[in-house]
Amino acid sequence: MSENKRPSTIKLTLEYNGSGFSGWQEQPGLRTIQGELHRVLKTILREPALELTASGRTDSGVHALGQVVSFKTFADPEIFEKIPYGVTSLLRGEVSVLGMQLMPPDFNARFSKHLKQYSYRIFRRRAAPILEKDFVWHVPKTLDLTRMQEATLEVLGQHDFTSLRSSDCVANNPIRTVDHAELVESGNEIVFRIVARGFLKQMVRNIVGTIVGIGTGKIALSMKDVIAAKDRAKAGMTAPARGLTLDWVRYETDIDEEKVHGAKRIFHHELLTTS
Amino acid sequence: MSENKRPSTIKLTLEYNGSGFSGWQEQPGLRTIQGELHRVLKTILREPALELTASGRTDSGVHALGQVVSFKTFADPEIFEKIPYGVTSLLRGEVSVLGMQLMPPDFNARFSKHLKQYSYRIFRRRAAPILEKDFVWHVPKTLDLTRMQEATLEVLGQHDFTSLRSSDCVANNPIRTVDHAELVESGNEIVFRIVARGFLKQMVRNIVGTIVGIGTGKIALSMKDVIAAKDRAKAGMTAPARGLTLDWVRYETDIDEEKVHGAKRIFHHELLTTS
Repeated sequence: MSENKRPSTIKLTLEYNGSGFSGWQEQPGLRTIQGELHRVLKTILREPALELTASGRTDSGVHALGQVVSFKTFADPEIFEKIPYGVTSLLRGEVSVLGMQLMPPDFNARFSKHLKQYSYRIFRRRAAPILEKDFVWHVPKTLDLTRMQEATLEVLGQHDFTSLRSSDCVANNPIRTVDHAELVESGNEIVFRIVARGFLKQMVRNIVGTIVGIGTGKIALSMKDVIAAKDRAKAGMTAPARGLTLDWVRYETDIDEEKVHGAKRIFHHELLTTS
Repeated sequence: MSENKRPSTIKLTLEYNGSGFSGWQEQPGLRTIQGELHRVLKTILREPALELTASGRTDSGVHALGQVVSFKTFADPEIFEKIPYGVTSLLRGEVSVLGMQLMPPDFNARFSKHLKQYSYRIFRRRAAPILEKDFVWHVPKTLDLTRMQEATLEVLGQHDFTSLRSSDCVANNPIRTVDHAELVESGNEIVFRIVARGFLKQMVRNIVGTIVGIGTGKIALSMKDVIAAKDRAKAGMTAPARGLTLDWVRYETDIDEEKVHGAKRIFHHELLTTS
């Protein structure tokens, strides 16, 4: 490691099971994804400290099929190839590295422009789920799918999402733009998917709670009216974390989708030249 | 409970996660599905002992989306309706009762004529699975799908499956008839499905191990030749239990499929009149 060397910027794409973690963000005394990842990366790269940035913080219990994390390291690039297997084996069964790329120095998982998709799985069957229990919200009620579909379409576009963010959300600007939203039936489940550049705190879980409230009839307002009210009390409950998964994050710098999705080619570990 | 009363015959359809159990069969000192189910049913029905029969014994670690179990009870039929919620809550997160039916006295989950389907999930992506890890076999190798498809079709029909049963299988007759077999790609997975009236010990896991061995090139013989050899040593390894799920069991006496599948109507608990 030469002293004048500039750091390398690394991007990791991760799958994780949120069940055993207190969310993404490192916190003293709690087992978090950032904390565990930090611990094992310091060991692998033999660095005293790293600053890990995720595309966004996932709440306690929320899963990821394609979270993106970036950090800078002065470690020798020859060590980099140990990262995917090192992280996957040190956090066995809980975190898996789907891809790794060397990025231009200005890349930052949070601040580089991107789109991301979350999905939320609602399990409808009356009998409790077993095999899928950690990944779904069990809603054994009669649901009005037509009203739920309408509510889903009404979150599309640019809105002030004050009604649908956590009451302790600290973002200055409550306006967000939803690029895609859909609600599809799949076997015993109803799956909600939403794509945007950014989300407010607990926004997806509050949207799902409201859609389900509209589906059961507990909420008489339309989603449009809930949003227009700019009042958290008009919306539904916060849907449980375990049903939520961060599916993917796509950056403007991405060359092709396979690099984001953990498909076959992602493990080629093509290291882009830093300009 | 009148002394002259004849017992009722009950059929339960169950979903379970095999991960925490040493298989179906009750055994001293081991936590088994039959053992746990026996324990909670005795409590619910207030009977000293029950004889529980499954359509077939699942191995340690094998899951079920629709196992069928039958037993006879002298308990008051008014207690029966407590069974689904009682079992599901006492074995929370591990066993769920999808359906319950009162059956004619000659019904027996094992001996009444039926077909059953198993599925086996092979996870192909190079990076280790996380969300699906308890339900798949991770095979991060290049697989020749064409040869695997051929092998799958060659198990169809009536054969002496000596090559593909466990060496300690005690069945007198090694001949079984496979009514349906398929191998389909689905995202990161290859899913194998097989339907038959009955299977030999570890037959499905040995078939899958052999299909994968053929796919990687480790086994040069065709499935047809493996079967013709009547020699366990010619076949592949026993695929891990966690990838295997008993999907459903259908009896000749079933009125409609929904009763087997845990779909909406299954919880109506229609009690058939015993003739």
